[in-house]
Amino acid sequence: MRALRLGMVGGGSGAFIGNVHRMAARLDGQFELVAGALSSDPERARRSGEELGLARVYDDFAQMAEAEATRPDGIEAVAIVTPNHMHAAPAKAFLERGIHVICDKPLTATTEEARDLAAACEASNALFILTHTYSGYAMVRQAREMVARGDIGPVRVVQVEYAQDWLTEDNASQQAGWRTDPAKAGAGAVGDIGTHAWHLAQYVSGLEVEALSAELSSFVPGRRVDDNVQAMLRFKGGARGSLWASQVAPGHENTVRIRVFGETGGLDWTQEAATQLSFTRFGQPRQILTQNGAGATGAATRLSRVPAGHPEGYIEAFANIYAEAARAIRAHGSVLPDGVQYPGIVDGMGGMAFIAACRESSANNGAWVAP
Amino acid sequence: MRALRLGMVGGGSGAFIGNVHRMAARLDGQFELVAGALSSDPERARRSGEELGLARVYDDFAQMAEAEATRPDGIEAVAIVTPNHMHAAPAKAFLERGIHVICDKPLTATTEEARDLAAACEASNALFILTHTYSGYAMVRQAREMVARGDIGPVRVVQVEYAQDWLTEDNASQQAGWRTDPAKAGAGAVGDIGTHAWHLAQYVSGLEVEALSAELSSFVPGRRVDDNVQAMLRFKGGARGSLWASQVAPGHENTVRIRVFGETGGLDWTQEAATQLSFTRFGQPRQILTQNGAGATGAATRLSRVPAGHPEGYIEAFANIYAEAARAIRAHGSVLPDGVQYPGIVDGMGGMAFIAACRESSANNGAWVAP
Amino acid sequence: MRALRLGMVGGGSGAFIGNVHRMAARLDGQFELVAGALSSDPERARRSGEELGLARVYDDFAQMAEAEATRPDGIEAVAIVTPNHMHAAPAKAFLERGIHVICDKPLTATTEEARDLAAACEASNALFILTHTYSGYAMVRQAREMVARGDIGPVRVVQVEYAQDWLTEDNASQQAGWRTDPAKAGAGAVGDIGTHAWHLAQYVSGLEVEALSAELSSFVPGRRVDDNVQAMLRFKGGARGSLWASQVAPGHENTVRIRVFGETGGLDWTQEAATQLSFTRFGQPRQILTQNGAGATGAATRLSRVPAGHPEGYIEAFANIYAEAARAIRAHGSVLPDGVQYPGIVDGMGGMAFIAACRESSANNGAWVAP
Amino acid sequence: MRALRLGMVGGGSGAFIGNVHRMAARLDGQFELVAGALSSDPERARRSGEELGLARVYDDFAQMAEAEATRPDGIEAVAIVTPNHMHAAPAKAFLERGIHVICDKPLTATTEEARDLAAACEASNALFILTHTYSGYAMVRQAREMVARGDIGPVRVVQVEYAQDWLTEDNASQQAGWRTDPAKAGAGAVGDIGTHAWHLAQYVSGLEVEALSAELSSFVPGRRVDDNVQAMLRFKGGARGSLWASQVAPGHENTVRIRVFGETGGLDWTQEAATQLSFTRFGQPRQILTQNGAGATGAATRLSRVPAGHPEGYIEAFANIYAEAARAIRAHGSVLPDGVQYPGIVDGMGGMAFIAACRESSANNGAWVAP
Repeated sequence: MRALRLGMVGGGSGAFIGNVHRMAARLDGQFELVAGALSSDPERARRSGEELGLARVYDDFAQMAEAEATRPDGIEAVAIVTPNHMHAAPAKAFLERGIHVICDKPLTATTEEARDLAAACEASNALFILTHTYSGYAMVRQAREMVARGDIGPVRVVQVEYAQDWLTEDNASQQAGWRTDPAKAGAGAVGDIGTHAWHLAQYVSGLEVEALSAELSSFVPGRRVDDNVQAMLRFKGGARGSLWASQVAPGHENTVRIRVFGETGGLDWTQEAATQLSFTRFGQPRQILTQNGAGATGAATRLSRVPAGHPEGYIEAFANIYAEAARAIRAHGSVLPDGVQYPGIVDGMGGMAFIAACRESSANNGAWVAP
Repeated sequence: MRALRLGMVGGGSGAFIGNVHRMAARLDGQFELVAGALSSDPERARRSGEELGLARVYDDFAQMAEAEATRPDGIEAVAIVTPNHMHAAPAKAFLERGIHVICDKPLTATTEEARDLAAACEASNALFILTHTYSGYAMVRQAREMVARGDIGPVRVVQVEYAQDWLTEDNASQQAGWRTDPAKAGAGAVGDIGTHAWHLAQYVSGLEVEALSAELSSFVPGRRVDDNVQAMLRFKGGARGSLWASQVAPGHENTVRIRVFGETGGLDWTQEAATQLSFTRFGQPRQILTQNGAGATGAATRLSRVPAGHPEGYIEAFANIYAEAARAIRAHGSVLPDGVQYPGIVDGMGGMAFIAACRESSANNGAWVAP
Repeated sequence: MRALRLGMVGGGSGAFIGNVHRMAARLDGQFELVAGALSSDPERARRSGEELGLARVYDDFAQMAEAEATRPDGIEAVAIVTPNHMHAAPAKAFLERGIHVICDKPLTATTEEARDLAAACEASNALFILTHTYSGYAMVRQAREMVARGDIGPVRVVQVEYAQDWLTEDNASQQAGWRTDPAKAGAGAVGDIGTHAWHLAQYVSGLEVEALSAELSSFVPGRRVDDNVQAMLRFKGGARGSLWASQVAPGHENTVRIRVFGETGGLDWTQEAATQLSFTRFGQPRQILTQNGAGATGAATRLSRVPAGHPEGYIEAFANIYAEAARAIRAHGSVLPDGVQYPGIVDGMGGMAFIAACRESSANNGAWVAP
Repeated sequence: MRALRLGMVGGGSGAFIGNVHRMAARLDGQFELVAGALSSDPERARRSGEELGLARVYDDFAQMAEAEATRPDGIEAVAIVTPNHMHAAPAKAFLERGIHVICDKPLTATTEEARDLAAACEASNALFILTHTYSGYAMVRQAREMVARGDIGPVRVVQVEYAQDWLTEDNASQQAGWRTDPAKAGAGAVGDIGTHAWHLAQYVSGLEVEALSAELSSFVPGRRVDDNVQAMLRFKGGARGSLWASQVAPGHENTVRIRVFGETGGLDWTQEAATQLSFTRFGQPRQILTQNGAGATGAATRLSRVPAGHPEGYIEAFANIYAEAARAIRAHGSVLPDGVQYPGIVDGMGGMAFIAACRESSANNGAWVAP
């Protein structure tokens, strides 16, 4: 099966997430990166393209969309890995030309951009995939599948957290630069990692949040965006939860954890032991379910590449999003194969609603706000 | 050094916490249990007293207070281990007679009883010790000491949780009986375990909460008290936190965890690895500090009984409360030895204020309430 | 039920294991320490006795055995907590007078002493209990019970280790003094901790070792005893195993771990998570069995003092040896209650045979030696 | 930089390790798979080639070596992923034509084949890389680097283990088929996983084993190769160690752990937490060093792809072997870049010597044998 032709917007040398997208795209051999508008600086764009051995290097995304759309061997999908305020415009340009878009999260920097982009998705026949990485972990998928099939009974409580420490102090790195710039990021921790936690909470529980009460803080002097998020969640149907996202939590390099408790059991997953899922049927001993091991569900097995006991990690989870994207793209226009799924524009709009609701609630002394 | 003479109210055969108090009192040989009013059922009281080899068995606490106060070899302290609604009356009876009181938590079932008891403490020269067990763990003490001496810098974020699963279903046990009876317990999870979490949050951080926003839930059909508590915390000085207490969290047998993050470092303690304290100075590798091991502070070492690597647990933590009580009782009237401390009436009143604030906030759609 | 009257030989102030014995004896209220010959230095003996509030203090064990045996309220059992070379003589003195002996391990410093002591046990009607602490852990008992009832099928492989680091450097402490003195300890790591590992391996697996091949090392310059033991084990019936005991393993404060693998399952226990037992039926997910929790066997429940999730540790395990001793002493002359068991002279002789076999094998280039 | 052209021998559809090699080769974009002799069954070879989108599919390796060596765009390296008895012949065929070889381990099925292959390596100018995966883990590299620079002082004790459970019962899978066939595998656990443990022990400690004493067992009825290996190790210079490799250890899906203890500190690494390295300087608290985190050495950082806290796993470790191979291939004929290293023919011959020594020792009642 030939690899799909992929382009990339952003991700010039030195970028973090651009390289992650490239590894994820390469891992399963489903994509071949052939074109890129890797930087707004033409010189850097050219150099980066050379380093990557790209067939076609463009100065900007508009030029790239134009040219690729008309080539017989043009790209079939594009990865957008720019800062948040630069998601909407390129995504629209490619969607309008029928090129599938794989876009980093959060969706955009502003609600207006998000609406625009949603409209473009609506108007286009092309697919839009949002890289909510953590839903790509095999055992997260398994957790969702187990909740859905009733293994823990109706859900009562959801506890989700995403904690980092890299912004504990003022940070002059390129990464921190745009991520703490309101104009480029749109939001701080609430957008950068809070949206992941938010997505996980609903993805795994299968429930929608109907209201949240939030408190955003900005602890580092001079920081212009939030760096700590506390929120209480009310789910439709009566479940309750809490969400914590922080970038000022020393000792947490990048902890993502979700726990879901139901009437008859509980699940506990953390990225630090990503290939495991702790499962307790109430009244029975806790079980450690493992990726591809005894107790693995179909969802987890389909997303596993190596036998049980061989750890897979973040890149593999990211690659699962790409692999699902490839399956969806190949099936485009016909029926999606069983079980294939990926975060899309709806999840992206949900994340934007979460950001907006957190801000509104926080600005109103923790009032309950519908996201 | 001769053991202090101890009496006990409640704790007849089959009781859980009564036996814990007895083991805690015995472990270090500082107390000798000599008298008891172990049950409101005289027959059971007598039988329980016999099983324990008690010198003097009483039918009720009033009789016991009266008699012991006048004997030359009367008890010097009494442990009160009855259900919550039966704390205030016996405590007052002994305090009024100058007998030190070691009382289980939460303080009382109602605010009125609490105020009464506080007044009795005020009027008495005797000591009042509240068994907030978790502050008896050596590494919890160390955490408090490290925060106090600035090891993690000014505190920004406090995350505390206490999760159990034993009330996931309707539960007909004697334990569950009174703990889910509003008349006897006064409150549900918020009182039974929430007060522990609340105490820990302030004890370790050294900060006071100035307002909280809470959501109490009662998930089990027919349950008349709360069984799940979500709360957001605002500390004086600007720190933020969240508290979760649940008795319906399958997989959590009895998880207590507190994390405190400051400007320069973070601490993480959980009862599941009670003799360890995870400590990170921002920018340096995480360190695993151990009880009595390298990196142990004076506070932790003083409360350790065995060398590093030999686990101590819940009973030892409880015994530390008793050991501190013994030191305080022996020093009574003169200067308390360096470092000796124990939870007292102020902590008890704080816990009652927490319960009341959670209820008020929850009844008012999560309004911020000062505890 | 009245407490049994206990005496103690050794364990003067500052001693480590003497205090552990006292806490273990006190915890369940089954013993009352009333007499002691706490030190060979009469002045220290007197002072220590006073600190402990002992009724009767003796200058030496012979005097104590003599006196206590003739008193109507004389001790019913004695704890021997001296260095190894001082176990046999006092043990014999008390056994000969029909006083039960609870003795620290290893049995003695030399094989000759051990034989003498075994003969004294044979000749006496009194009980002899050896404090192999680790077999007192509830989940170790459960492991033994599970193996015995076939939960993992016939045993194939046993891996046991006991690793410490406190003797990594030359160590001038009182503890290290006698423990690294061949005349007082008899052996180094092989005796002090190797015998624990050896006991566990056979206790849990229910199998006897028929031959071992060992390599003893002494890494610290000037050390006169071994400080690292490697051994391969051949069990009767064909199972194989390995044993590692080390006192020069930085990072291991006091790690004890035993794994037993059978034809249909495996068990894994480590003191660092002493209230858990990891159990895998081949082909099924790993289960975390917990003390007093779901999946606990009768053996474990009988030895648990608090509900699941409340950690018990080293002192509780030690206290379980004492509690079993008390039950055996109380039942002495009639039928032992169901399930009551304790390590005795046979285990002690086994440990001595292990030490001798390790030395012989090591001196003969790892020749296989029957213990 | 253009990708290197890679061929593959073996690894037709359904094969486990072939796909791992392909993912490892793809991950960093350093190799492009263009040709293959994927199966000895021509029909399966063709089908597999098609599935992989290979440019050139051959019926057998000889034909492939011949053809590729003469094409201007012929492969520059070949991955050999056949069962062990099929390593030597293809490896020689490519080496003789100057094509670099990346070969799975163990080196060969027999000592004779190994010698042949070593001679071919000697005679060829091409590189030979052996995929000892575990030495590709960033934190294993860091451990080696730390030992080498003296962080734990001179090494005293090395404990290594590799435990699996998939062969606990007779197993009819394709994988188990050849791995338990003496003619195809050459050996059982000792070759398949024992060689990994053996390699790690020497790789991390930087020491050579001068003698070993081993006991091989075959527990599953009818199994014709060993499935459990116990060994004691004597290193040059006096260090001691033990090695355990087992495929019948229920509960161990694929546990690899190495601990190295020196005069001033200790290191502990296990694949289950592959991005961490536990490090203790004697007398100081244990530190958890993390991949790309605080305390990471240059070796670890060079092999990390994502920031600290984002788990990397088995595929990334494997890809590190490929990435180092690519660097070595690109630098071939000139100076190897700083720090680049990979397991080669010497390691392969060492593994064969280990297998032979284990067998000889085991057949001679555990006699010490020089590998």
